Amino acid sequence: MPVPFALPPNTSQETFARFLAEVSQVVGDENITVVEKVEELRDGSYLDQPRTHDPHHIVDQDYFMASAVVCPRSVPDIQAIVHTANEFKIPLWPTSIGRNTGYGGAAPRLRGSVVLDLGRHLNRVLEVNVDGAYAVLEPGVTFADLYQYLVDNGLSDKLWIDVPDLGGGSVLGNTIERGVGYTPYGGKSDHWMMHCGMEVVLPNGELMRTGMGALPKKPGKPDGPLHEDPGNDCWQLFPYGFGPYNDGIFSQGNLGIVTKMGMWLMPNPGGFQSYLITIPREEDLHQAVDIIRPLRLQMVLQNVPTIRHILMDAGCLGTKAHYTSTKGPLDDAEIDAIAKRLNLGRWNFYGALYGPEPARKALWGIIKEAFSAIPGAKFYFPEDIKEKSVLHIRHKTLQGIPTFDELAWVDWVPNGAHLFFSPISKVTGDDAMLQYSVTKKRVREAGLDFIGTFTVGLREMHHIVCIVFDRTDAESKRKAHWLIKTLIDDCAAYGWGEYRTHLALMDQIAGTYNWNNNILMRFNETIKNTLDPKGIIAPGKNGVWPSTYPRSMYKL
Amino acid sequence: MPVPFALPPNTSQETFARFLAEVSQVVGDENITVVEKVEELRDGSYLDQPRTHDPHHIVDQDYFMASAVVCPRSVPDIQAIVHTANEFKIPLWPTSIGRNTGYGGAAPRLRGSVVLDLGRHLNRVLEVNVDGAYAVLEPGVTFADLYQYLVDNGLSDKLWIDVPDLGGGSVLGNTIERGVGYTPYGGKSDHWMMHCGMEVVLPNGELMRTGMGALPKKPGKPDGPLHEDPGNDCWQLFPYGFGPYNDGIFSQGNLGIVTKMGMWLMPNPGGFQSYLITIPREEDLHQAVDIIRPLRLQMVLQNVPTIRHILMDAGCLGTKAHYTSTKGPLDDAEIDAIAKRLNLGRWNFYGALYGPEPARKALWGIIKEAFSAIPGAKFYFPEDIKEKSVLHIRHKTLQGIPTFDELAWVDWVPNGAHLFFSPISKVTGDDAMLQYSVTKKRVREAGLDFIGTFTVGLREMHHIVCIVFDRTDAESKRKAHWLIKTLIDDCAAYGWGEYRTHLALMDQIAGTYNWNNNILMRFNETIKNTLDPKGIIAPGKNGVWPSTYPRSMYKL
Repeated sequence: MPVPFALPPNTSQETFARFLAEVSQVVGDENITVVEKVEELRDGSYLDQPRTHDPHHIVDQDYFMASAVVCPRSVPDIQAIVHTANEFKIPLWPTSIGRNTGYGGAAPRLRGSVVLDLGRHLNRVLEVNVDGAYAVLEPGVTFADLYQYLVDNGLSDKLWIDVPDLGGGSVLGNTIERGVGYTPYGGKSDHWMMHCGMEVVLPNGELMRTGMGALPKKPGKPDGPLHEDPGNDCWQLFPYGFGPYNDGIFSQGNLGIVTKMGMWLMPNPGGFQSYLITIPREEDLHQAVDIIRPLRLQMVLQNVPTIRHILMDAGCLGTKAHYTSTKGPLDDAEIDAIAKRLNLGRWNFYGALYGPEPARKALWGIIKEAFSAIPGAKFYFPEDIKEKSVLHIRHKTLQGIPTFDELAWVDWVPNGAHLFFSPISKVTGDDAMLQYSVTKKRVREAGLDFIGTFTVGLREMHHIVCIVFDRTDAESKRKAHWLIKTLIDDCAAYGWGEYRTHLALMDQIAGTYNWNNNILMRFNETIKNTLDPKGIIAPGKNGVWPSTYPRSMYKL
Repeated sequence: MPVPFALPPNTSQETFARFLAEVSQVVGDENITVVEKVEELRDGSYLDQPRTHDPHHIVDQDYFMASAVVCPRSVPDIQAIVHTANEFKIPLWPTSIGRNTGYGGAAPRLRGSVVLDLGRHLNRVLEVNVDGAYAVLEPGVTFADLYQYLVDNGLSDKLWIDVPDLGGGSVLGNTIERGVGYTPYGGKSDHWMMHCGMEVVLPNGELMRTGMGALPKKPGKPDGPLHEDPGNDCWQLFPYGFGPYNDGIFSQGNLGIVTKMGMWLMPNPGGFQSYLITIPREEDLHQAVDIIRPLRLQMVLQNVPTIRHILMDAGCLGTKAHYTSTKGPLDDAEIDAIAKRLNLGRWNFYGALYGPEPARKALWGIIKEAFSAIPGAKFYFPEDIKEKSVLHIRHKTLQGIPTFDELAWVDWVPNGAHLFFSPISKVTGDDAMLQYSVTKKRVREAGLDFIGTFTVGLREMHHIVCIVFDRTDAESKRKAHWLIKTLIDDCAAYGWGEYRTHLALMDQIAGTYNWNNNILMRFNETIKNTLDPKGIIAPGKNGVWPSTYPRSMYKL
């Protein structure tokens, strides 16, 4: 056996070899890769990244390093691997596609974990049901795959999907991580709300179905060609079933490996129009957010709109060097110049109207009138803009057509890598301005440019700050790491918390959710230790450490 | 100390007395009532029922019997009681208001449990936030209370609530039981989706806040006059927080006592129009449901509409004796005669339009055209009907104004009592007709009339069958019990499961959710035994029995 660069904790080379030999009996040698060395980020290739460590590393490149990657071919394979992992006390890190970019990619939190690459083989759209407007998916189905499936089967005019900024991620994985989308089915502002029914391999290897999936299918219901036991007719229609509703503890958690998930799809709303409203001045953010809040609550703004900082858009269209020779943080005049050059505002609001034309017109009238209160605000439809623009990208995203263009801002600096800082706030001008100014100040202190967007859910905003750094420059990495650590503490002091984070920050953020002597974490870890006594499933995920891997020993 | 009629299991009179003496130190004697005898249902008084046993008993009246009722005055009281209950191994049955009518009222599943009457003192609206459109509630706030609060504070034109058929239940309690409402905020078709953030006393007495509530409030945030630690600004705005999302395991469960809950309120939609569509023939149900499905998915039907059987409406307006001298089940001709007399259809579809008038008109046009495909369907607004009618009641319910009229059908027979049978199905004509015919057949075999309604969520229907029986007649009770037990098994064989049930049926229904050797229940009980090793919180709730009270010993 090749020698892994990073062995699992407390595991000898020989034990690890025996473990892999048993796993090989299950999946075959061809589905096991021992990770012998650190692979470098492949430039400009979001779709083809190593699944063995974090390509956007802000700590040592080999810190979040897998010992091996195993690709199960089926649910029974996963169950068998889990049994073996229990036997040998080997930690597993399940990943669907591994494009959790900005949050650690496919890399495990605990060094030396075995990455379970679920998506390599388990990548089938098991069902799309038009009457019920849902899909049943395996972990490896990306947003782009699902969209293509609808196109190939002549269903894309009937059913729309909800996509995040990038189309290459796993639908199931993104949903479990409570990722955000931008159509009206972006939901409360996340995909989680729109999932219905899961199948999970538990830490003891048993297979569970949640909600109505716990009720057996009706006798005589035929198997599908792909879906061996398609389950209860209502599994994807009614999320709860009977008794405790367990799905949530598997989201952002480490209590099981989700192998199937139902996702609700949006019926074609009968019409669509994307738009851009440019907001000229930095301080207009305040007024814009206060305009947005009541419109969003009233569903005049029907979807999850975004207020993007000019440099996010600039970054989608070119590198920093393309605009300026300045190396350090840009000043206001330089940022204004870029905005002028791109014919954009300091903030740019991207939204869409859904429904038949008369309904869209009525809503657009209200929206236009409301935003006209901001002096100098301008209004655009995609057809109003000739050159390549972010609106043309958002035009697709906002109607659920996956794109791959949005990560271009990662090349804002040479050898660009990034991580996301994602605090939640109220939808008020005061909160937005305060959160922006606190963040901007620290970003400048780190010698970086502020790149970010406010994503407006029904009652809160996800503020997504894109921290872009040079991954080949130790100082740049160090500053990026300092920046996010500092921002987490700054924001916690204002009562703001993050909804999701990179591997390196999980413990720190979990530590801010510490009301009443950390009772939430103690609760989570009590359940973890009961269901997973050997601590084999994703130890350390979002700060939840099993007793077999004490936090004090593994905390970054 | 008075002698309780029913002691907790394995508990001597003397131990119980010592337990109550300790509890008395916490809440005072005035907040403890020992249940010495069975109280009778108070006729016609939905609002004033005993909290000591099931007033609509279908098994022996003293079977679901509390030993005592304790009314904590505060959250620390609850924590102290939980500590004492652990010490003495006394089972507690928390109840918010106790009007869980048709499902067991305030009665405990395990005979001799101590009912914790949370709502007696913990009945404050802690906050209503207009900008965020939410309320923070204690368990004792009823739908009627919350509505009155909005009226009293001049907020009822800004914020609407979502109510079930009866306004006297606890908002928090109904939400935890995943009850249904009828406005667009009836949600996926339940209140659960619209809750945001909880505070829970865990079985070990510790206090936990979920979601953003785990993040401490920002320093300097003032206390409210009622809300001592109002918590994080986003507690009621963003449901998930960071890491595993735990709320669901407290719904329909027994892992804690929910003491506070955030509820999202609906901004005034800017207009409202209720309507009734009468559907003449029994078999038209098929066509009606197939008309409804796409309209509901498209949100042309914006809220959770209902298709009510004629006898449900008839029962709201009079007793059976008022219409006929027939004692046994009515035949088709008799039912048609009642429909004719009331100017209603065999099925009656109650819905509403929300929004400004032009939007409502556009939707009404589509709805009217679609239902006009049913020969003889008629369309009514409330102003079209002069006499007292169900539409006038639904007109209120559908705009979130609580009413108390709907339970009148319980007096369909003399000494009427009832229980609900509530299976979930697909929204298809085939499923509706099959479920209706299966149910109707068994209802007739039990010598009863079919009374029921189909409540249409986004992708499924809650079929609510009202089993009305004479509680003073042992034979009538026996038949009602036989009926529901038989229906559960009948429906399970068709792949249909119930979403909620009466105390007496919890084990049977939980037993139908048995996919893969009952893994869901084994999972639930593993968590239960870990968090509540003495099994003191609501043992047996929805079939989840702690190991201290083995199912085999207590199963009905």
